Amino acid sequence: MMADGRGFERSEFESRMSRAQSEMTSRNLDAVVITAPHNWRYFAGFATQFWESPTRPWFLILPRDGEPIAVIPTIGEPGLAKTWVSDIRTWPAPQPQDDGVSLMAQVLGDCPRTYGRIGWEMGRESIVRMPIADFDRIRAACAGLEFADASPLIWRLRMVKSQAEISRIERACRIGSDAYAALPAQLSAGMNEHDIARIFRAELTRQGADAIPFMAVTAGAGGYDQIIVGPNDRDLADGDVLFIDLGATYDGYFCDFDRNFACGRIDDDTSRTQDIVWRATEAGIAAARPGATPADLAAAMVSVMADAGASGGNVGRLGHGLGLQLTEPPSNMPGEETVLEPGMVMTIEPGMDYGDGKMLVHEENVVITEDGCRLLTTRAPREMWQIS
Amino acid sequence: MMADGRGFERSEFESRMSRAQSEMTSRNLDAVVITAPHNWRYFAGFATQFWESPTRPWFLILPRDGEPIAVIPTIGEPGLAKTWVSDIRTWPAPQPQDDGVSLMAQVLGDCPRTYGRIGWEMGRESIVRMPIADFDRIRAACAGLEFADASPLIWRLRMVKSQAEISRIERACRIGSDAYAALPAQLSAGMNEHDIARIFRAELTRQGADAIPFMAVTAGAGGYDQIIVGPNDRDLADGDVLFIDLGATYDGYFCDFDRNFACGRIDDDTSRTQDIVWRATEAGIAAARPGATPADLAAAMVSVMADAGASGGNVGRLGHGLGLQLTEPPSNMPGEETVLEPGMVMTIEPGMDYGDGKMLVHEENVVITEDGCRLLTTRAPREMWQIS
Repeated sequence: MMADGRGFERSEFESRMSRAQSEMTSRNLDAVVITAPHNWRYFAGFATQFWESPTRPWFLILPRDGEPIAVIPTIGEPGLAKTWVSDIRTWPAPQPQDDGVSLMAQVLGDCPRTYGRIGWEMGRESIVRMPIADFDRIRAACAGLEFADASPLIWRLRMVKSQAEISRIERACRIGSDAYAALPAQLSAGMNEHDIARIFRAELTRQGADAIPFMAVTAGAGGYDQIIVGPNDRDLADGDVLFIDLGATYDGYFCDFDRNFACGRIDDDTSRTQDIVWRATEAGIAAARPGATPADLAAAMVSVMADAGASGGNVGRLGHGLGLQLTEPPSNMPGEETVLEPGMVMTIEPGMDYGDGKMLVHEENVVITEDGCRLLTTRAPREMWQIS
Repeated sequence: MMADGRGFERSEFESRMSRAQSEMTSRNLDAVVITAPHNWRYFAGFATQFWESPTRPWFLILPRDGEPIAVIPTIGEPGLAKTWVSDIRTWPAPQPQDDGVSLMAQVLGDCPRTYGRIGWEMGRESIVRMPIADFDRIRAACAGLEFADASPLIWRLRMVKSQAEISRIERACRIGSDAYAALPAQLSAGMNEHDIARIFRAELTRQGADAIPFMAVTAGAGGYDQIIVGPNDRDLADGDVLFIDLGATYDGYFCDFDRNFACGRIDDDTSRTQDIVWRATEAGIAAARPGATPADLAAAMVSVMADAGASGGNVGRLGHGLGLQLTEPPSNMPGEETVLEPGMVMTIEPGMDYGDGKMLVHEENVVITEDGCRLLTTRAPREMWQIS
């Protein structure tokens, strides 16, 4: 499991389970039920892309005492048996008339009760991955058991990364950084955005990315107006700003950072904005340290942009946590008072509106250390990379 | 939007909307609320990988009369404005204390009521993509409105593909077929499964795949024991059977088919099983025609394997629908009596257990035509491809 840095020791999962169990006691939960892909990977070490099929629900029950219990479709048993989870109960899914509902009701009913409360992924940035009609059925079948929100518990655990997790994110960031650096020499005016995406995908694969779940490619004359749709069927032209945002993974862990490229000569307004946002990023990195809050990070970045007369961006926040998902809590925004601590991995992502409906967004990834933070990405140059 | 075969004409979306509205009337629904990525793409034509971020919910309301209404985070407005959806209402997400809840309650409250019923993605093979605690809040705020399951309506529409959709799936299948065919010459004993995955990714990217959301790579001495986990850190060895299953997309539409490769000489039991499963696939393809049911397809495949003394596989079904998702309804299994009609795209996927815990799975993709079906994949050879 450990060759080439992939997979985790059993002790990593035992530690996650033990932390979860402590949190269950302090939050008065008898168990937590996991249904979502990234939580499955976090607690069970189960790595698959089979989640692309919406057909079958999967359940992992983490009791407050003892080992995890998997309640899964038969198709998953031989694969899951290779993980540290040993208590595996199956049903022959798909079975539309009762797809794990009665089996789950029985397993939850058998769970030792102290508080009469079962946690599910019900809250912020969480999804219960199963038909909600079946969730309602299980809830009705578990009379006397309160279904409570376990997402604060789950995010509390996932938010602080182990050294093993940080090394995966760092590797994903290196792969992304090296692939970005190799890109300007391969791009030129006249290329279609889809071709640019294909070239970048090929480069990332060559550099060792396991998967590329997120890649936005968009360009516009003198700047772009949004950052989440694209590539589109548009040819890169002289005077364009090209924006690429990347979420690539290594061993399941993401990098998430963007880069801006100037195609030929860009106008002075864009160049001026580029420098402001670059300096805002510097301020965000400087502010990232234990004891600071994501609100502090946001304030540091906003301050640089406001001093330069900017009105701010419309993306709603200026960065976020990063790990098994492209974005994780917390968010760099006013009101987010989670205290940063060593092991948290954050994106530093200032965005600024300028000109006529244009925006410029920068992004780097850092890990909080004992006395500050360490940059995981290769810092973007102060002036945009040039494409000719 | 239409160059290089990507994107759809406005009429395609108007047709989908109009069919949805007819179904709403016959199912007594005043509106349908969409939250899940593939349904967003189907009804709005909104193509983004931003769904990788779990932070913000997105809502698309399809009223029984009139145009769709989008209720989305501000960050999405400029991108969505490029689609055919014009009624866009936003809130500055993330906003943890009220992330679209009161806005959604207001929009649903304003919907004209005939039946007092709003459909959501609550049932089979469907997910409501938002925190379930917020779903409960919206449900509570909409007193007097029943929240009903709209998934049968949605799948009824998505199950039958337009010519424009079929051409995308066919292109994804051709990309996959050509990439598979180029693979044996690039592989050899001693290669790690991760390297094999990387080589196949590179080849698929070269052939024009937009994304590769699903790729399982697994091998074992004389056969494999599961098909959803992998690549693992294992070197391909003489006598192995290598299994690769692929879900690659073009313009959002999937192919989904596997291939088996013999590394050196494989044993007689495996060769015999290969021939049985290959013939079962032939039987499945022959049975695929308008008027048949997925249960008929399953029976045709099982019959060939049972005649050969097989006990069947453990994957729960022998193929499924295919389109914007890797797997879609219906399932080829007993009891599935959906009547096949022209435009449905199905995988033909027999699997057979043999030997000591080994399995062999084949898969092809077909579209149902007026008088039978048309193969979209390049048919696998009767004997496994050879790797030396």
